[in-house]
Amino acid sequence: MTGSRPSDLAGAIDALFTFLRIPSISSDPERRGDCIRASDWVARAFEETGLDVERIATDGAPIISGADVRGRPRRLLFYAHYDVQPPDPLAEWRSPPFEPTRVRGEDGDRIVARGASDDKGQLVAVLAGLRAWRRERGEFPADILFVSEGEEEVGSPGLQGLIAREPERFRADAAVIADCECFARGVPAIFYGLRGLAYIEVEVIGPRSDLHSGTYGGAVDNPANVLAAMLAACRDAEGRIAIPGFYDSVRPIDGDERARIAAVPFDEEAFRADAGVPALRGETGYTTLERRWARPTLDVNGLTAGFQGKGAKTVLPARASAKLSARLVPDQDPDEIAALLEGFFRDIAPAAVEVRATRHPGAKPVFIQTTGPAIDAARRAAVAVYGREPLFVRNGATIPIVEVFHNRAKTPCVPTGFALPDDRIHSPNEKLDVECLEQGIAWTMEYLSAFADL
Amino acid sequence: MTGSRPSDLAGAIDALFTFLRIPSISSDPERRGDCIRASDWVARAFEETGLDVERIATDGAPIISGADVRGRPRRLLFYAHYDVQPPDPLAEWRSPPFEPTRVRGEDGDRIVARGASDDKGQLVAVLAGLRAWRRERGEFPADILFVSEGEEEVGSPGLQGLIAREPERFRADAAVIADCECFARGVPAIFYGLRGLAYIEVEVIGPRSDLHSGTYGGAVDNPANVLAAMLAACRDAEGRIAIPGFYDSVRPIDGDERARIAAVPFDEEAFRADAGVPALRGETGYTTLERRWARPTLDVNGLTAGFQGKGAKTVLPARASAKLSARLVPDQDPDEIAALLEGFFRDIAPAAVEVRATRHPGAKPVFIQTTGPAIDAARRAAVAVYGREPLFVRNGATIPIVEVFHNRAKTPCVPTGFALPDDRIHSPNEKLDVECLEQGIAWTMEYLSAFADL
Repeated sequence: MTGSRPSDLAGAIDALFTFLRIPSISSDPERRGDCIRASDWVARAFEETGLDVERIATDGAPIISGADVRGRPRRLLFYAHYDVQPPDPLAEWRSPPFEPTRVRGEDGDRIVARGASDDKGQLVAVLAGLRAWRRERGEFPADILFVSEGEEEVGSPGLQGLIAREPERFRADAAVIADCECFARGVPAIFYGLRGLAYIEVEVIGPRSDLHSGTYGGAVDNPANVLAAMLAACRDAEGRIAIPGFYDSVRPIDGDERARIAAVPFDEEAFRADAGVPALRGETGYTTLERRWARPTLDVNGLTAGFQGKGAKTVLPARASAKLSARLVPDQDPDEIAALLEGFFRDIAPAAVEVRATRHPGAKPVFIQTTGPAIDAARRAAVAVYGREPLFVRNGATIPIVEVFHNRAKTPCVPTGFALPDDRIHSPNEKLDVECLEQGIAWTMEYLSAFADL
Repeated sequence: MTGSRPSDLAGAIDALFTFLRIPSISSDPERRGDCIRASDWVARAFEETGLDVERIATDGAPIISGADVRGRPRRLLFYAHYDVQPPDPLAEWRSPPFEPTRVRGEDGDRIVARGASDDKGQLVAVLAGLRAWRRERGEFPADILFVSEGEEEVGSPGLQGLIAREPERFRADAAVIADCECFARGVPAIFYGLRGLAYIEVEVIGPRSDLHSGTYGGAVDNPANVLAAMLAACRDAEGRIAIPGFYDSVRPIDGDERARIAAVPFDEEAFRADAGVPALRGETGYTTLERRWARPTLDVNGLTAGFQGKGAKTVLPARASAKLSARLVPDQDPDEIAALLEGFFRDIAPAAVEVRATRHPGAKPVFIQTTGPAIDAARRAAVAVYGREPLFVRNGATIPIVEVFHNRAKTPCVPTGFALPDDRIHSPNEKLDVECLEQGIAWTMEYLSAFADL
């Protein structure tokens, strides 16, 4: 195993702390300036690594490309994003989300902040690996293109568009997508399937303003009751999504894959305990891993209606709204599913209310190749760093850009990562183990090394 | 008709403006000090009217009693409350809710503020009527007890308890409950039936914190989806409440009452247009007035779950909650109904979540007598002020104290008011027409006058 030097690790932690202090929340228009600051940070860090920087404007935050391209026989692309999820609910953070805190305790040595794991920590790991290579080994063994965007958490619209317009710019022998995680501590993974996403907001609009529930209740329909009924109609008692046509394009899990999934060393009880729920629950007829990886979902991400303060208010709300997203599996299409959802709500809406739906950016589900040099190098790097072969598994999450790299740029993707499943990404108290940062630095050097030997 | 003098009206408007500036929101613990300030205002106003003031402490805001009791043969009780509903949603107010604004326009001459109609404006009308009587006619024709509380909008727990403990203190020949309204402009009303209230909050508790909907979605049940399903299960397609036992104590509307309700000059289209909905909708088999007055409801008053900011966040919420209230009709009992609701949610909750329910204060529905001196005097006063007999109708709203005055203190109640149905009580831009204030002053004098003649 190539060990990172203490100085590499200390430098990477310092850099990461500075990076984590920038609240680059891409979904919040008021954080636009912070996203720009984060892109500036990435551009400077690329420069300091000896890469030629290009800033590519989008409608949102810019894409930062760092290149060392000299016509070598092979080209390696690395991808990580610099935007983060909102930190809500703020009250549950034990330290402020944008004041990174190093916590050393019985649980290990961790960096706690929004983005520590997803994805600033992994971006810094790859970057520190590239720097360490330059310092220790000199020239890169292949042309390098490091692509970082600031719109991953809002569906990567800018980068998706750019790849669709200029696919050749992103053509490479491998694209390391450093936005995933290990399967478990010490168990590296390569994700051969990722779920897609369709996301809509549904608003039920009733009276002109909030009404007195005594004077109007019973005669004027209640948008919050209507919304609840419409959301409930989306799912049946077996946990199946009850929207006609929803499963039409779902590729069934074949027997071979069921067996492979069943053989994964998954500790269901530990998963349940980590989630903190009394019991797991999902679609009848599927195991927990199948539900997470190979079946689509429809989750309410947010509900808003009426009076939300302390105490009682007897109000019949003027409107009620839900944020609602479906995780998709091959071969579902996000636009088709969003249209299905919108049509379903329009069809079942009572005449006593108005229903409006708006769409957020979606993403296609994807399967990638599981053989070839890009994957072989990742296996070698994993064995060198973790002392074992990586697991080939699916992932329930969505990284929109994988599908686009894979299908548009025709670049073999390696969706992998150095983080851990218990990092609480998208949740309060997100963390990254310092050991994971170190492993990421080492993995990046090993990955380059594997290409040097080819 | 006894006209109020211009000086009475101007003084009443000045007083009301001062009163309306106090944000006495009883449901908000942080407004406790403002509720005390409002009680002080009432106490001073009672003193200035020549009443002997008593402050009666409760667990919340105090009860203010103003008495002129000299052993006269009859005793009249007046009731109005000094607390108000929260002003949310604030963004919809055209002027700040606690900066009263007089708006003269094509719609008339109005005072706009939270509490203008419910109930500070009506409290001031009665008070100005009593003052005008003293100035113009001298001694009151009966003993007077003016009772004002600051907990009406949270179910009147303090006053209910006091009446139950000391019913004789509230025994009178009539209790004018100045917390209702006219049936329509120029059409006075006496409300012989009021709905009761049961109010609970239901919280569905899932994972330890908000989770990534990709990584966990499908395997960990979503509290917001569960809440929607549970709320939807409360109502069937016919608009009936589907909770077993909910209707067991509901007194059916008899043929006579149906005919009386059908004869009420109700402009359903104007009601729909004022509510601002495309169509009215309610329980199958009942008219709009029957649904509002004589049938129970179950309305969601508020929904909260997950991400409510701008944009998309792919979160599986840790918890989801609903504020939920039922308007009750005779002979439903609020405690029984709250227990039914809690039991229903417990029974249907899946094992994958925890469900907690908490209760807010409820109120019993009530029918009052429609004959006798208390009512006769109200009819005479209405004829004098409005030139017509009052309508005897029910009201869909809840005034908890009416049931307690009626059943505990055995005091004949006169639930009436001078406000208008389009006053937007509990809603943004609540208003009171200045004409209504004037009519309230005149009505109060006429009511006293009717007792002087007895």
